[in-house]
Amino acid sequence: MKKLLLISWLMCGFQTPPTDTPQAKVRAYRQSHEHQLLAEYSQFLAIPNVASDMPNIGRNAAFIMDMMKQRGLANVQLLESGVDNTPPAVFGEVRTPGATRTITFYAHYDGQPVNPAQWAPGIQPFAPVFLNGSLEKGAKITALPASGQPIDPEWRLYARAAADDKAGVFGLLAAYEALTKTGQKPTANLKFFFEGEEEAGSPHLGQLMARHRELLKTDLWIICDGPVHQSGRKQLSFGVRGDVNLHLTVYGARRPLHSGHYGNWAPNPALRLAKLLASLKDDTGRVLVEGFYDDVDPLTELERQALATVPEYDEEIKKELWLAQTDGGGQKLVEMINLPSLNINGMQSANVGDMAANVIPATATAVLDLRLVRGNDQARQVQKVVAHLEKQGYFVTATEPTEAERLAHPLICKVEKKSGYNAQRTKLDLPIAKLVIAAVQATTKDRLILHPTSGGSLPLYLFEQHVPAPTISVPIVNHDNNQHGENENLRLQNLWDGLETLAAVMLIK
Amino acid sequence: MKKLLLISWLMCGFQTPPTDTPQAKVRAYRQSHEHQLLAEYSQFLAIPNVASDMPNIGRNAAFIMDMMKQRGLANVQLLESGVDNTPPAVFGEVRTPGATRTITFYAHYDGQPVNPAQWAPGIQPFAPVFLNGSLEKGAKITALPASGQPIDPEWRLYARAAADDKAGVFGLLAAYEALTKTGQKPTANLKFFFEGEEEAGSPHLGQLMARHRELLKTDLWIICDGPVHQSGRKQLSFGVRGDVNLHLTVYGARRPLHSGHYGNWAPNPALRLAKLLASLKDDTGRVLVEGFYDDVDPLTELERQALATVPEYDEEIKKELWLAQTDGGGQKLVEMINLPSLNINGMQSANVGDMAANVIPATATAVLDLRLVRGNDQARQVQKVVAHLEKQGYFVTATEPTEAERLAHPLICKVEKKSGYNAQRTKLDLPIAKLVIAAVQATTKDRLILHPTSGGSLPLYLFEQHVPAPTISVPIVNHDNNQHGENENLRLQNLWDGLETLAAVMLIK
Repeated sequence: MKKLLLISWLMCGFQTPPTDTPQAKVRAYRQSHEHQLLAEYSQFLAIPNVASDMPNIGRNAAFIMDMMKQRGLANVQLLESGVDNTPPAVFGEVRTPGATRTITFYAHYDGQPVNPAQWAPGIQPFAPVFLNGSLEKGAKITALPASGQPIDPEWRLYARAAADDKAGVFGLLAAYEALTKTGQKPTANLKFFFEGEEEAGSPHLGQLMARHRELLKTDLWIICDGPVHQSGRKQLSFGVRGDVNLHLTVYGARRPLHSGHYGNWAPNPALRLAKLLASLKDDTGRVLVEGFYDDVDPLTELERQALATVPEYDEEIKKELWLAQTDGGGQKLVEMINLPSLNINGMQSANVGDMAANVIPATATAVLDLRLVRGNDQARQVQKVVAHLEKQGYFVTATEPTEAERLAHPLICKVEKKSGYNAQRTKLDLPIAKLVIAAVQATTKDRLILHPTSGGSLPLYLFEQHVPAPTISVPIVNHDNNQHGENENLRLQNLWDGLETLAAVMLIK
Repeated sequence: MKKLLLISWLMCGFQTPPTDTPQAKVRAYRQSHEHQLLAEYSQFLAIPNVASDMPNIGRNAAFIMDMMKQRGLANVQLLESGVDNTPPAVFGEVRTPGATRTITFYAHYDGQPVNPAQWAPGIQPFAPVFLNGSLEKGAKITALPASGQPIDPEWRLYARAAADDKAGVFGLLAAYEALTKTGQKPTANLKFFFEGEEEAGSPHLGQLMARHRELLKTDLWIICDGPVHQSGRKQLSFGVRGDVNLHLTVYGARRPLHSGHYGNWAPNPALRLAKLLASLKDDTGRVLVEGFYDDVDPLTELERQALATVPEYDEEIKKELWLAQTDGGGQKLVEMINLPSLNINGMQSANVGDMAANVIPATATAVLDLRLVRGNDQARQVQKVVAHLEKQGYFVTATEPTEAERLAHPLICKVEKKSGYNAQRTKLDLPIAKLVIAAVQATTKDRLILHPTSGGSLPLYLFEQHVPAPTISVPIVNHDNNQHGENENLRLQNLWDGLETLAAVMLIK
């Protein structure tokens, strides 16, 4: 039996990989601890983590503190913003005698709101399950093999925040565990800073960082959030887009009306909202709001060169997503994320499907998010949209319109601006940036992809403001993770590769 | 004390009302039985009645049979359509020896679907409660006074179907009870026919009527559904609009996408749906679908004269509904309901409010209802809408598009046509129509309003087809009943007046 296995091994052409590199040691440790790691991660994912759910946010924070203490981190504590009833950040550190540099790792442990009804049968946001592949490709819920048996790395773990961004929190702590358990020691000081309300727009992060400025002081911020490239290749991002959300509500009659007795006569707010939303973008997706693309800082020569490292992959993504055509009139995805965007996150008026009734709805609502690039200012960008609404004849108000306002203005739009922030970007040619690039490149045979900016957003402008240091994003999760949507998931191989990536960054000298 | 009351009575100028008219007898009976009547009606309303909920539909039907038997109706039975698992109609009759005429009363006991989350705090669709007035005017949930104490007729009963249309079922049976308990006997045969799936579009009513054609044979159909005029005046309608529902779904990527990583590039189905809906109507609400207003039969001279009996009330309704402007470029409500309409009943894409997430939704859905007038054909009207969608560049399909279709067509709209039916109208100058007009006019000092058609819909074309006889609608409920929406309610005075109206029709000679 043993002989047969050996022969198969040789026949397949495998060579014994080197076992003495830092990467090999992390891999070996992980391979012999997969069941324990996934059991612990599943426990973590089972704790609901919407930022507004304070009791569960507290349970998440306590769980993270336990994980930190078990791994021997020092100075483990909650960092409060000083505003009552807001999610704390969780902090822990590794003090290295004689260190000349401090690297601080950021991730967030809260997740996007969930609508369990939209998740697939048997898959619920806070009841982690394993599938033997991707749900979209027909994979099924499957129990893990018995402890000691190998786990197929193409399997996936389904739960809210499995990818975004408990994978960052857990991946960092597991990477550090793998380093120390295999006798490897960082030469820098390491700090871990895990936020609890990123998905709510980080409304108190500025206050929190200002309050704990000394504790957080660092030479480099490593941001562990977001996916690797759609091709599966590792990538680094040197910036993030800014983001701001607007909730729009338009009004019909003060109560829903019978569509027979009032149809044709009472205005329909769903139609009004449709017309308003339709006026925002043309058929190619270009935003029609006046001046929307002004203010954009041009890319530097180095950033343009970095963009050229991004593989041509749009056709594959279109096929994967069942898209016959994309917005932007043929421009590439990587070009488009270097522009400000306007997206409809959701819209609703009365009910559809089985709950639909023959009514003229009373209101209609849409949620927009505006992504911002370097040069945009969030308040200015919002003001452009408000000016556009007014140009469509709308009376715009920030609060619920009164009876008198309703009777005075045929067209009313309530615009609620949620907390937002601007874009941020780190220069690619900083010496420390080069060190990170080299460390991560050493963990992969493929050419590392360098993004001047990620399409996603993080409140890195606050880092710049309160604890200034270069910020570099080191993402680890699979691109098709359904982050923010239903059926969020993490491909196990991405977690395993991620441990090696993050451990390499922790060993920077 | 008694003397004081008597003096107040005289000082207020009241005269003792006549006590010997049929109307006075019905009123006196009702006044001494209000508590019993409302207790029984509340029990009836507590049974959920969405047509797809077969177990509860069965409980409603059994409850109605009991009410019929208690009132001495003959031949009480369920009428089945012959299609398994479809709501039965409930039938009962009063055979009058020597009668030369049969009058059949129609109402429906099912109600529109409900979304309990949209109802006001403390008010749930199937837990009837009394409010001391209208919710919109600040009324509160209030317990009824003790038995024997008078009940303010401005109070309202809140529950799904309180107005539409258990009020028809219960009002008819209570009116008959009041007649017989005060010794009054109809000279005609009376039949009661209560449908159980009107709000689902009466998909089996034709089969059901065809099957029980002999039992249902009649000289006159009286339809008890819909509200009295907004002014509070009694009205009769001689026709109904037809109705057909369309569910539209448009598509983006096959899964929801992170709005940062894919925004600007992946098409947004909410935007596409908004553009499609916006293309259907102009800013005044006029439908832009080609030929939409063709096929409309003009009103007869008599019908135009009848329309002139409708009071000018639009300004009052606008004020009540907080509407600064109405659709139709200034045309009156009563004119507008004599035209075909296209209404958005509901629309949804991903989530709004607290459940909103930063995603590009995967699909967007809208439900339309098309009201039809005499001359329109439902299939032809739907085809016009489909042609309009195609003209906007959409590939229209009746079924879920496949991967191949999604990859082949940039714009896809799934159109699901739900069951529908055409409009129906009875001539105003038929002798029996004149009898009904005279009977109802005798119960009110105000001039009776005569509508050639109601704005609402009922499948009366099926009556014409299977059990032909003139159909006249005799509505009783308040206009501001929120029928089809949340917080549906019945004003008690409307029920009380309704008993007198319906009893008068039962006594037609």
